[in-house]
Amino acid sequence: MNDSIQVISKFALQGLETQALRDAAMAAKQTLESGSGAGNDFLGWLHLPSSIDEQQLQAIEESAAQLRSECEYVISIGIGGSYLGGKAVIEALSNHFAAYRTDGGPKVLFAGSNIGEDYLYDMMDLVRGHKFGIIVISKSGTTTEPAIAFRLFKEMLEQQEGKEFASRNIIAITDARRGALRRLAIEEGYATFVIPDDVGGRFSVLTPVGLLPIAVAGFDIRALVKGAVEMEQGGEEQVLDYAIARNALYQQGKKIEILANFTPRLHFLAEWWKQLYGESEGKNHKGIFPASVDFTTDLHSMGQWIQDGERTIFETVLSVGDQQHEVIIPNDDADLDGLNYIAGKNVDYVNKMAELGTRLAHIDGGVPNLLITIPAVTERYLGQLIYFFEKACGVSGYILGVNPFDQPGVEAYKKNMFALLEKPGHEEATAQMKIRLKQ
Amino acid sequence: MNDSIQVISKFALQGLETQALRDAAMAAKQTLESGSGAGNDFLGWLHLPSSIDEQQLQAIEESAAQLRSECEYVISIGIGGSYLGGKAVIEALSNHFAAYRTDGGPKVLFAGSNIGEDYLYDMMDLVRGHKFGIIVISKSGTTTEPAIAFRLFKEMLEQQEGKEFASRNIIAITDARRGALRRLAIEEGYATFVIPDDVGGRFSVLTPVGLLPIAVAGFDIRALVKGAVEMEQGGEEQVLDYAIARNALYQQGKKIEILANFTPRLHFLAEWWKQLYGESEGKNHKGIFPASVDFTTDLHSMGQWIQDGERTIFETVLSVGDQQHEVIIPNDDADLDGLNYIAGKNVDYVNKMAELGTRLAHIDGGVPNLLITIPAVTERYLGQLIYFFEKACGVSGYILGVNPFDQPGVEAYKKNMFALLEKPGHEEATAQMKIRLKQ
Repeated sequence: MNDSIQVISKFALQGLETQALRDAAMAAKQTLESGSGAGNDFLGWLHLPSSIDEQQLQAIEESAAQLRSECEYVISIGIGGSYLGGKAVIEALSNHFAAYRTDGGPKVLFAGSNIGEDYLYDMMDLVRGHKFGIIVISKSGTTTEPAIAFRLFKEMLEQQEGKEFASRNIIAITDARRGALRRLAIEEGYATFVIPDDVGGRFSVLTPVGLLPIAVAGFDIRALVKGAVEMEQGGEEQVLDYAIARNALYQQGKKIEILANFTPRLHFLAEWWKQLYGESEGKNHKGIFPASVDFTTDLHSMGQWIQDGERTIFETVLSVGDQQHEVIIPNDDADLDGLNYIAGKNVDYVNKMAELGTRLAHIDGGVPNLLITIPAVTERYLGQLIYFFEKACGVSGYILGVNPFDQPGVEAYKKNMFALLEKPGHEEATAQMKIRLKQ
Repeated sequence: MNDSIQVISKFALQGLETQALRDAAMAAKQTLESGSGAGNDFLGWLHLPSSIDEQQLQAIEESAAQLRSECEYVISIGIGGSYLGGKAVIEALSNHFAAYRTDGGPKVLFAGSNIGEDYLYDMMDLVRGHKFGIIVISKSGTTTEPAIAFRLFKEMLEQQEGKEFASRNIIAITDARRGALRRLAIEEGYATFVIPDDVGGRFSVLTPVGLLPIAVAGFDIRALVKGAVEMEQGGEEQVLDYAIARNALYQQGKKIEILANFTPRLHFLAEWWKQLYGESEGKNHKGIFPASVDFTTDLHSMGQWIQDGERTIFETVLSVGDQQHEVIIPNDDADLDGLNYIAGKNVDYVNKMAELGTRLAHIDGGVPNLLITIPAVTERYLGQLIYFFEKACGVSGYILGVNPFDQPGVEAYKKNMFALLEKPGHEEATAQMKIRLKQ
């Protein structure tokens, strides 16, 4: 068994890869590594894994231990990159039914990534009367979604458990010096961690932004970082293969990349990937549209479209080597369901045949196929996968000719929302909005 | 407040709608209602809501009461249309953190919609030592995914609680006469419900396939059906507006429809919608690619792409009138986060401004916008929404010129999988597969 990520693109390219594209990819990689490209003030993630030292890991582990020692629930408050990385890793490593179980450490809940009134009400109702802690993640401390959630849960926690418990069990991850949350943390005496200036949200999972919630959930952040270091130091070939393949396909009119897994626990890893690639490449009226499916579930949903719809898609299958547990399909004397031909096999054997069968069916249907394999879903291999996708994203964005590290379009809805909410400082926009809405 | 679904397409069409297209839509509707089109042996859903009688509802409620009286967990086993409808309605109506709570009735879990070995292991580990029941949903009883899950949980239940408990708490939803599951149900004395021959999986949520799990979860299936009847008898205008708008946009090169909600509980309704439209229209190398996002969460993920990526998308916002609960944003004297300008407002007010602000931002960015509104997330309005989407899907598929009621492409992966698994009866395909894989 291989000990790291493999990228297999032979069913995607089939002669499509040109020397020109490989040259462009090498140039893009050089631009990225030399820090000479667009958005080069946001390259802190590039050598992040190898720069994390013992002291940082220990500080995170100590904060996690504090929260684990006193809290039944820990609410991680953040949106976008301050949500998806931690969520993806925790979901990938957790028992599928952790929420239903009463064993294990504190439950990590996520708030501040929506403005759902019922969602917040239900969460408040859940933690009422229970000891809980808060990880609040925000560079500025003023982003609307997390700020609302933090106001609510901070007030609730202080009223319920007292100021002292609250200051001990609220941890702020924010700017090193500036901003509302930094100021509040100083005033209230919260433990804090820093969001580096040169790491954008979607590249921040290996900073305390992701590492602290992951550690609170009980997972091994050292192994996660170790895996990322392995890819930082050795993933060049895989990174180039993926970046080249997807750009080759895009140039051939394959406009949608569907990331497919056959492993239910990887659902949120695909959500994280969608932010990483969608936000990095979807600009200047170009970029691959990132979509995701969970198979075999969605073979009975999007499967028909993928097999027979417009031939403008390609599929990237994220394949996992080993499962953690074994379940053997039992024999049944009556065999009414006709399954005895696979009795005695383990379930994953069937899943692997479904995976191979699906890849071949989609290739035959005209869907180019990329395969990315990891040996198992563990901290180490997730760390590899995260860094691999990040690096390939930087290279891919430069091949495409965009700045992969900004996200100007995210401001558009906020500006309108502030105008509609009549936020101080937005009076002119509010006036214009009122005129527009009257028309 | 309006008492039903509204469809507002003025920001999508802007002159695009032609008389020819409206004529085509009227003809498609006529074809559908007269049963003269392709796939017309699968139109049982068309007058299904009004045909559900007291006796059927009572039988479902009695079975649900049986499971609720003896079980801590009820495992609903099914895939595709035998999974997504029930899942969508249950998630939409449940407390967001129901899994974490110990109050309420039995927990409804879903199995048989994947081949995840760890997923099954974790579920078996969860229900071990607890009283559980099974709803097994399969027309044939031989579909691989649900058949594996049912073998495992049936054996476990019989060993754990005895044959008698098992026969009382396993309910089969299957073909009226034929098939492995019907035969087994007769032999074992299970209570059964029928999947009508003329209702395809993705249109089956208002049959026992969806109604029984929904009733077990404690929701009002009478109100759900009532809502559907309202749309069956009065939704003509909305159905035409939606079907026309999306076809007009598709004809203009808008290849991807993004269904966006601002209501976290509607996540799985979008998954159900993706099956409904993707499987109905994605054939003959055509059809809109259905995608979905949960806002404002995904404004910090796919938001950048939607605002600034390729202009080949349109957005359908599913908007909800009222929330169930109220959460007021508290005042904070220090106001470090600068939120006092919305202190005293309820959270949903902010969400509504985010919704309007987003729609305007995306329209300005070149994304045509359709708006579908429901007054609240209740059984009744979900019933309306379900029938509305079903009817509009039939009309839309006929406008597109496909058979909206078949799914030939779903067989492709199964054929390969059976060949790879060396299933009896597939010897020829197995031999060919072996040759192919050697190449």
